[in-house]
Amino acid sequence: MTKPHRHRVTFAGQNREAESGEAESLLAVARRAGVRLLASCGGRGTCGACRVKIVLGEVHGGAEDDGWHKACRSHARSDLVVEPAPRSMAAPERADVDSRDADIAPDPLIHAHDLALEPATVEDPRDDARRLLDALAGRAEILDLEAARTLSGLLRDQDWQIRAFRRGPTVIAVAPRHTRPLGLAVDLGTTNIAGYLVDLETGARVAARGLENPQTFFGADVVSRITHAVREPEGGPELRRVAGEGLAVLARELCAHAGVSETAILDAVIGGNTAMQHLLLGLPVKQLGHAPFVPALSDAVDVPAAEVGLALAPGARVHLFANVGGFVGGDHVAMLLAIEKRMGQGATLALDIGTNTEISLIDGPEIVSISCPSGPALEGGHIMCGMRAANGAIERVWVEENGTIGFATIGNQPAVGLCGSGILDAVAAFAKAGLIEPGGRIQPHHPQVVERRHKKAIRLEGEVVVTQDDIRAVQLAKAAIRAGIDHLLKAAGRTEGDLARIIVAGAFGAYIDIESAVAIGLLPDILRARIVQVGNAAGLGARMALVSGAARARAGVLARRCRYLELAGQPDFQTTYLARLRLDPNTARKEPT
Amino acid sequence: MTKPHRHRVTFAGQNREAESGEAESLLAVARRAGVRLLASCGGRGTCGACRVKIVLGEVHGGAEDDGWHKACRSHARSDLVVEPAPRSMAAPERADVDSRDADIAPDPLIHAHDLALEPATVEDPRDDARRLLDALAGRAEILDLEAARTLSGLLRDQDWQIRAFRRGPTVIAVAPRHTRPLGLAVDLGTTNIAGYLVDLETGARVAARGLENPQTFFGADVVSRITHAVREPEGGPELRRVAGEGLAVLARELCAHAGVSETAILDAVIGGNTAMQHLLLGLPVKQLGHAPFVPALSDAVDVPAAEVGLALAPGARVHLFANVGGFVGGDHVAMLLAIEKRMGQGATLALDIGTNTEISLIDGPEIVSISCPSGPALEGGHIMCGMRAANGAIERVWVEENGTIGFATIGNQPAVGLCGSGILDAVAAFAKAGLIEPGGRIQPHHPQVVERRHKKAIRLEGEVVVTQDDIRAVQLAKAAIRAGIDHLLKAAGRTEGDLARIIVAGAFGAYIDIESAVAIGLLPDILRARIVQVGNAAGLGARMALVSGAARARAGVLARRCRYLELAGQPDFQTTYLARLRLDPNTARKEPT
Repeated sequence: MTKPHRHRVTFAGQNREAESGEAESLLAVARRAGVRLLASCGGRGTCGACRVKIVLGEVHGGAEDDGWHKACRSHARSDLVVEPAPRSMAAPERADVDSRDADIAPDPLIHAHDLALEPATVEDPRDDARRLLDALAGRAEILDLEAARTLSGLLRDQDWQIRAFRRGPTVIAVAPRHTRPLGLAVDLGTTNIAGYLVDLETGARVAARGLENPQTFFGADVVSRITHAVREPEGGPELRRVAGEGLAVLARELCAHAGVSETAILDAVIGGNTAMQHLLLGLPVKQLGHAPFVPALSDAVDVPAAEVGLALAPGARVHLFANVGGFVGGDHVAMLLAIEKRMGQGATLALDIGTNTEISLIDGPEIVSISCPSGPALEGGHIMCGMRAANGAIERVWVEENGTIGFATIGNQPAVGLCGSGILDAVAAFAKAGLIEPGGRIQPHHPQVVERRHKKAIRLEGEVVVTQDDIRAVQLAKAAIRAGIDHLLKAAGRTEGDLARIIVAGAFGAYIDIESAVAIGLLPDILRARIVQVGNAAGLGARMALVSGAARARAGVLARRCRYLELAGQPDFQTTYLARLRLDPNTARKEPT
Repeated sequence: MTKPHRHRVTFAGQNREAESGEAESLLAVARRAGVRLLASCGGRGTCGACRVKIVLGEVHGGAEDDGWHKACRSHARSDLVVEPAPRSMAAPERADVDSRDADIAPDPLIHAHDLALEPATVEDPRDDARRLLDALAGRAEILDLEAARTLSGLLRDQDWQIRAFRRGPTVIAVAPRHTRPLGLAVDLGTTNIAGYLVDLETGARVAARGLENPQTFFGADVVSRITHAVREPEGGPELRRVAGEGLAVLARELCAHAGVSETAILDAVIGGNTAMQHLLLGLPVKQLGHAPFVPALSDAVDVPAAEVGLALAPGARVHLFANVGGFVGGDHVAMLLAIEKRMGQGATLALDIGTNTEISLIDGPEIVSISCPSGPALEGGHIMCGMRAANGAIERVWVEENGTIGFATIGNQPAVGLCGSGILDAVAAFAKAGLIEPGGRIQPHHPQVVERRHKKAIRLEGEVVVTQDDIRAVQLAKAAIRAGIDHLLKAAGRTEGDLARIIVAGAFGAYIDIESAVAIGLLPDILRARIVQVGNAAGLGARMALVSGAARARAGVLARRCRYLELAGQPDFQTTYLARLRLDPNTARKEPT
């Protein structure tokens, strides 16, 4: 065996390199080099997402039959040149759907006051804090301790002329005159973190930025992160720290883009799912991992920015939305806030499709909310050729008039994989074209059907296939969601026909083809005009709450209106779920009993 | 020159040893070894306090004429055995005067509630925080985030039966049933930190402990610490950190003594002078260092315990008293709280004698407060044979009937130096015996008068002398204090004859001989029965505020009643000061004009 030794690893096409540490996997080296390889399983060697080609040099372990290597299982034995597989690259998501900033109505929580103070003298030796509060003449009573740490120097540097920022009776920050008050809104997703820098006075978006959640390294989904937090002695603090680091990077990049300092950020709002918010706040998650899946804390909280790893204005606080239940979190409340204006007469079904799909039925004063463990398939995760929505991803699949399968890729590049909307379309198209049975089985005698690893698969182009396992994964996801909808309607004493509208939120939901979703039975078959795709409503809700105290209060009201329904407690859920596995719009029309 | 090398340094009689780092002074080695050498000048080689004898081995630098070495200037050149000079040892102060716990009337801010919760179920999946608050049935509305971090695990470990501690509407901690609520009161002095562990329900003192303020390493007095904070790039954070470490050690030792965990401490109150409180809170001190000497923040503050380096119960907060001015701080407010009951009819003069002497005149609704830079002489600092009040310190000096000078040492040990009360007595006795003139000059032709470093000195025993410089230092101290009293009376339109009482607080004030103090003119010559020594009133005030919301509120009222009078702003202060240099009770009877 070769003695452990440090080797230089160059990532071809990425313009990055790093030295491999002793016994360090290529995945870990890539992370250190800033090359973001996908690793849905958290580097455990099971998902096969982190594929690389060894262009030059020798590695130990990780070899696959087809000549690729799993980066998480490979270790350098010499200097290397390594080329990541295109679909292994964790490219940024397509820009979020530009959810309507028009809904943002500023009702500022932070007020700016320009002040000219009398300098301190021996005859008037009031402390600097008192002098400031006196100048605010009753509009403020308290100076935040963090702001007090910067006041004395600022007063003397700025010749006693400063701007004070106040929230309620508390001065939270002091700055040179004319400093523009900015805020940070964050949609803290399990996979991606989206951040927005916002002018607190106008509500205008100053900059927007997306980032992979660095917790992904510890597992792709919520459950694997909870497991990490519970099993590893330092797991929870570690996940908290990296989430904070992600937020800090996001804030830094947003501010660099806008040409301002992070200390110009006076307020922040973060919406994430219950587990993300718990991990970020250092709250225990063990009890989230098993029935009855209860949060440690569901109320909205305001914490000093430093508590979540952010170095903003001295007295800046971070608001996190209330959680509804163990798997319906603050991001769902943010989504509800964003779509509140759309909840008109009649019952509204609102869902955010992801690894966990949160669904609410808004019907009169009550909102009933559920969470469905839909898995990553609909986002292209754990799919053999699944990938993020980057160039070369098949995003649309259809049946041509001649009965063959057509498709389109992002950027019209040669196909390298399928993103979420492509997977959904593909399954719908295959079912329509008769390539697969309504039960999901691939028909054996079709020219596009090939063998992959001793299992059937449908070939789209070159190496890009959809396997039998991929189709099963889509079926399981759609059955979980649709069975959830069935139980939600039942709990409210409603039927699909009663739905006045369906609101599909989220990055994935923004891109799916509604016809495909209805065709395979993911969504109820109601009038298409009643089904609306609203994009990243959680991000919009966070921005609304950032600039408006009234909106923040409304979010609190919405959270309190929600009643969490735990599907694990429904005795007949399994029956409905099994019935909903079929790939057609009309199965299990009968409601759960 | 010898190459830098690590050597083993053994401290004789201390049972301690350590390796000397490269270019590390013996003072620094001693600190690391846990041997607390005095270093009034902060290790700059000017005070000569850190004297050691090199018993075995070779050193470089620091040699003095008399065979001793300054530890701060000496570096090991071989393995060493070193013996600290007895009066160089920073021994703990004599136990504080046991100020009257009878004044402590509990009016608890923290309330304990024993609860038995219903376990969470799928049908009742309320979050743990909500379940707790619901069980408190309206008595609490908020669960502190830090407490929330411990709640979920505790509930499940304790079979859903716990004790919740509430302050106002906020649950600040949760613990197993029957956990006794404890609090920490601290008198944060420039030189010493005194800590008390207190039962919050009964007010009983569970443990008491003193510790040298570890900031002493960066300078003995407030001004040298401010200088360090301003001049060194990391000076402020460094002073903040070591103060926090001192508090943490104190809490640990108190809890170890009481056999409890520090997480049993639910609340804390700290009183320190303005600079100490600023440094502890990370507030800027630059503006405290020059006229008009204004605090950054004077209001009382409540901060999470972690802000001051303490790891107490999860949601524990620390209350710091309001400051009155740049050099009249929270410890003075604590003192006023402790002596409030003694402020009867007529004008009360209350003073806490130390390196800075804070004095208040309580006369009707207004309290006028001043600070006098009296220097360390009255505490035995910067005095050639000055030392702490440890065994062998001369603590009493008198004139025998035959006109000779008599004295007594602590523990009846052979004299090794003089502590503060001994210095004061000695000067008074020398003046009475005619050994020194009222102007302070040593009479040349007395058998006890010797030469020390080409200057006159009065020999008490063996090596123990009082030098001309020492007498000058006492004169300067007493003049500063007495001139301050003069101006305070003048500002209030009062004379010495109007004083109904004088209250002398503080560790030093508890031990001085009032006759000596009056004899040299340190204190006004009023009826002795009207002069009261009350011991560590600041510590008592901190304990009172710890266990009582009403007392804390009264402290706030007292602070607001105080008007800070800056002596630096008094044009005729210098004249009064010079007149008050004479060592007799009656000089400058005329008030300042």
